[in-house]
Amino acid sequence: MRASNRQERAQEIRAIPVHGIADVKPGDSLAEIVLGAATSCKLQFSAGDILVLKHKIVAKAEGRIIRLDSVKPSRRALATARRNNSDARSIELALREARRVLRDKHVLITETQHGFVCANSGVDVSNVDGGESAALLPLDPDATAAKIHRKLKKLTGVHIPVIISDSFGRAWRQGLVDVAIGVAGMKVLRDYRGRRDDYGYTLHATEQAVADELAAMAGLVSGKDARVPACIIRGYAYPLGSGNARQLVRATDKDLFR
Amino acid sequence: MRASNRQERAQEIRAIPVHGIADVKPGDSLAEIVLGAATSCKLQFSAGDILVLKHKIVAKAEGRIIRLDSVKPSRRALATARRNNSDARSIELALREARRVLRDKHVLITETQHGFVCANSGVDVSNVDGGESAALLPLDPDATAAKIHRKLKKLTGVHIPVIISDSFGRAWRQGLVDVAIGVAGMKVLRDYRGRRDDYGYTLHATEQAVADELAAMAGLVSGKDARVPACIIRGYAYPLGSGNARQLVRATDKDLFR
Repeated sequence: MRASNRQERAQEIRAIPVHGIADVKPGDSLAEIVLGAATSCKLQFSAGDILVLKHKIVAKAEGRIIRLDSVKPSRRALATARRNNSDARSIELALREARRVLRDKHVLITETQHGFVCANSGVDVSNVDGGESAALLPLDPDATAAKIHRKLKKLTGVHIPVIISDSFGRAWRQGLVDVAIGVAGMKVLRDYRGRRDDYGYTLHATEQAVADELAAMAGLVSGKDARVPACIIRGYAYPLGSGNARQLVRATDKDLFR
Repeated sequence: MRASNRQERAQEIRAIPVHGIADVKPGDSLAEIVLGAATSCKLQFSAGDILVLKHKIVAKAEGRIIRLDSVKPSRRALATARRNNSDARSIELALREARRVLRDKHVLITETQHGFVCANSGVDVSNVDGGESAALLPLDPDATAAKIHRKLKKLTGVHIPVIISDSFGRAWRQGLVDVAIGVAGMKVLRDYRGRRDDYGYTLHATEQAVADELAAMAGLVSGKDARVPACIIRGYAYPLGSGNARQLVRATDKDLFR
């Protein structure tokens, strides 16, 4: 078992794509599907491995796919879509998924019901079915990650942390990066506070968002390629314990701009 | 050569720590030092490899280390430090490095002269010399990356993109993640706009900040361990072309909150 609460000597980390995952349908068991595909790739889960899944495969398995022609945009959605040159039906879904709208100029930035701040409440038409339907974020991605984590344990006997990822924009930086929206089986932050660096200086205020960095690493493997929605990360001594993606959401009173 | 402008079949990506890098001194050649350490680890640079360096080793090589007892805090620095329970001399340096202060409550968030938005203008006392001195961000991290990139080419004959990284906080998410503050030898964004997904849907508004994801991946290898300030990423088909980290800075008129 490589996982550890202490930082050990830095080791090589590998991100291994799981090829051969077919389109999933509502009700499918993602643990079984990923395990089957991994086995076909001659990949065996072992202690220390982490599984990263793109959220869209979760949306499909959980039936969070909405046909756009079934959506009647509100006046607000129509106005926002016109202003942002986007599809009013997607915007309508994004508004329904939002707890709060933070910005609706150029792009719609919302706070989702989970507390995530992202464009269009994570509602996305790409990699679904060619533009007919939109995928919504899972209702409770932490619960989904926990379910898959438990099932993998049952099927393989191994403790495999599970991260569900999505691509989010950033306030001040260009481009999207994958972040963790659901996590189970590991801590999401590595806490260095109170530890001494190699020069004897006591670190403070340093928490590393390792679950987001793992999601980003998996994002490099998958890119926008819908055919590789799963990735195994091997060799990373993740922080032991339980954690969830909501711990990665900055409390509103501590966040930097709301 | 694995690098490519097109996304190929997803492949395994490896992040390999370069052990054995001793403390660097002002004027040291980082290309030579990293190459020497890599050779001692029996690591040979090959086509497709990317080198990620923590900014602190760059600060040391470029003499961007300031003794705190040489810094006289201004009244503003004293007030901010008192409010945030931090060291007034570090805050003074952070204010001098800043183009603009975005927030000075709880934590000092600034826009640096490079345009980066981060805490304390990137001024950091950890992993320097035990608390006596602070490291400033490199004056021009893109130029530094380009210099190391050219020198590596000269020494090895191989085209090795170079990324200089630092740990930044995010507006809405907890914890730090490593991002790219200097880049040479590759594009920093992978542009999917106009490409069709596997279902025939044309992607728009999708740019992946791959240089940041590569920095994050390297951040997992190094953690806060000063002994491993360099990491080789192998197997990632990075977007070919030239790019720099300033392209990762969102234009002020497009950013989400200034």
